Amino acid sequence: MTDFVYRLYYWPSLPGRGEFVRLLLEDAGIPYVDVARTSEDEGGGVQSVLALVKGGIDCFAPPILEYESGRHIAQTANICQYLAITHDLVHEDPFDRMLANQFQLTLADLVSEVHDTHHPISTSMYYEDQKDAALLRSAAFIEHRIPKFFGFFERTIASMKETYLLGERCTYPDLSLWHTLEGIEHAFPKAYAAHIVDYPRLRALRTAVGAREGIAAYVSSARRMPFNEHGIFRNYPELDLED
Amino acid sequence: MTDFVYRLYYWPSLPGRGEFVRLLLEDAGIPYVDVARTSEDEGGGVQSVLALVKGGIDCFAPPILEYESGRHIAQTANICQYLAITHDLVHEDPFDRMLANQFQLTLADLVSEVHDTHHPISTSMYYEDQKDAALLRSAAFIEHRIPKFFGFFERTIASMKETYLLGERCTYPDLSLWHTLEGIEHAFPKAYAAHIVDYPRLRALRTAVGAREGIAAYVSSARRMPFNEHGIFRNYPELDLED
Repeated sequence: MTDFVYRLYYWPSLPGRGEFVRLLLEDAGIPYVDVARTSEDEGGGVQSVLALVKGGIDCFAPPILEYESGRHIAQTANICQYLAITHDLVHEDPFDRMLANQFQLTLADLVSEVHDTHHPISTSMYYEDQKDAALLRSAAFIEHRIPKFFGFFERTIASMKETYLLGERCTYPDLSLWHTLEGIEHAFPKAYAAHIVDYPRLRALRTAVGAREGIAAYVSSARRMPFNEHGIFRNYPELDLED
Repeated sequence: MTDFVYRLYYWPSLPGRGEFVRLLLEDAGIPYVDVARTSEDEGGGVQSVLALVKGGIDCFAPPILEYESGRHIAQTANICQYLAITHDLVHEDPFDRMLANQFQLTLADLVSEVHDTHHPISTSMYYEDQKDAALLRSAAFIEHRIPKFFGFFERTIASMKETYLLGERCTYPDLSLWHTLEGIEHAFPKAYAAHIVDYPRLRALRTAVGAREGIAAYVSSARRMPFNEHGIFRNYPELDLED
């Protein structure tokens, strides 16, 4: 180990996919620099992210982690897997490690589906210009996809007879699941309330993760950005369930 | 190593995401049973997949690999990573392994975007019932996303000054990139032709992978399913570029 401090590159004005990496680091108390949220004088700002991805190789999009000086990796699940293994934040057993990665990838699929509820046509167009499709996609997401994903994670936790996805020990997909539940409640408060009553283990996991020392400290800090209408989880009331 | 032969569970009537796992196995000459394509008398057929995912835990959706008797893993990139490491099909260097995973996850994002060109609203609805949105999404995909992804992979290969994503050695994301190029050409032949002229290294990679012994043998076998209008890469001429 060197003295190098991790440098996370992600858009400075939204939690986004960078948040899944931040949560792992914050929960474990690992120091990092959230580069784009430092000033441009310090080499930060949104330019620091743009410079990495524009015309870039290897890393298609943020989040990007500089884990050694000049060495960058991308893809949220890939970054989390690297950090968890490096810092002993996941089980030693190879099957458990694969499961953690598997859960993280399943959550990544869910997160992409949430994003597409408000951008079903193109990320190059404004929400307002794809609202008709967004209304349809959101309705289908609420009716079919929320229960499918929630049911899957509920059963998986139940099968372990403990609090977390991999049993007694909280690992990074639990942190990501927590954030995803927070995000879905922000985006679709009525739909979330209507569904979550059926999933006691998801509620218990959410409580347990939120009470963790590193997570609670992070949430009450200025480092935790609120959800907003630039990110993945956006509250557009017209997309939620009707009363 | 035991005598257990890998069992791949995937929908029997489309290449789908199962194909990325098949290509890795076929290229390396690793034996496997494509379970759902065996008869129901042998425990196969579509029922074998449904039985695994309906009410299931851990594995949200196919492809699912039974890699030891009774032990299943899911998520395409997770399965490929496991197989590549187990069978020495990827570099030993941890950074190269992360890069391979990173490319595979970037391809998974691209593949999901291709899927959503014909199903932008919901997988629970027929294409015909979401065609208006599909026309819009496809146009945006062709205009913005194809050049963004193709440009990224082209630059990445160029940076290695060799044929493949990780340099001289062909690894599983190269096989997946090959299949994705084949699929995009099937789905959008006019758009593919219009774009691919700008990406000589993608064309060269496609030629090189197609000429590999295991891939060529697979493609000429009955095991290779043609693309069809049940899968990810569907040819709906109205979604392609106009003449």
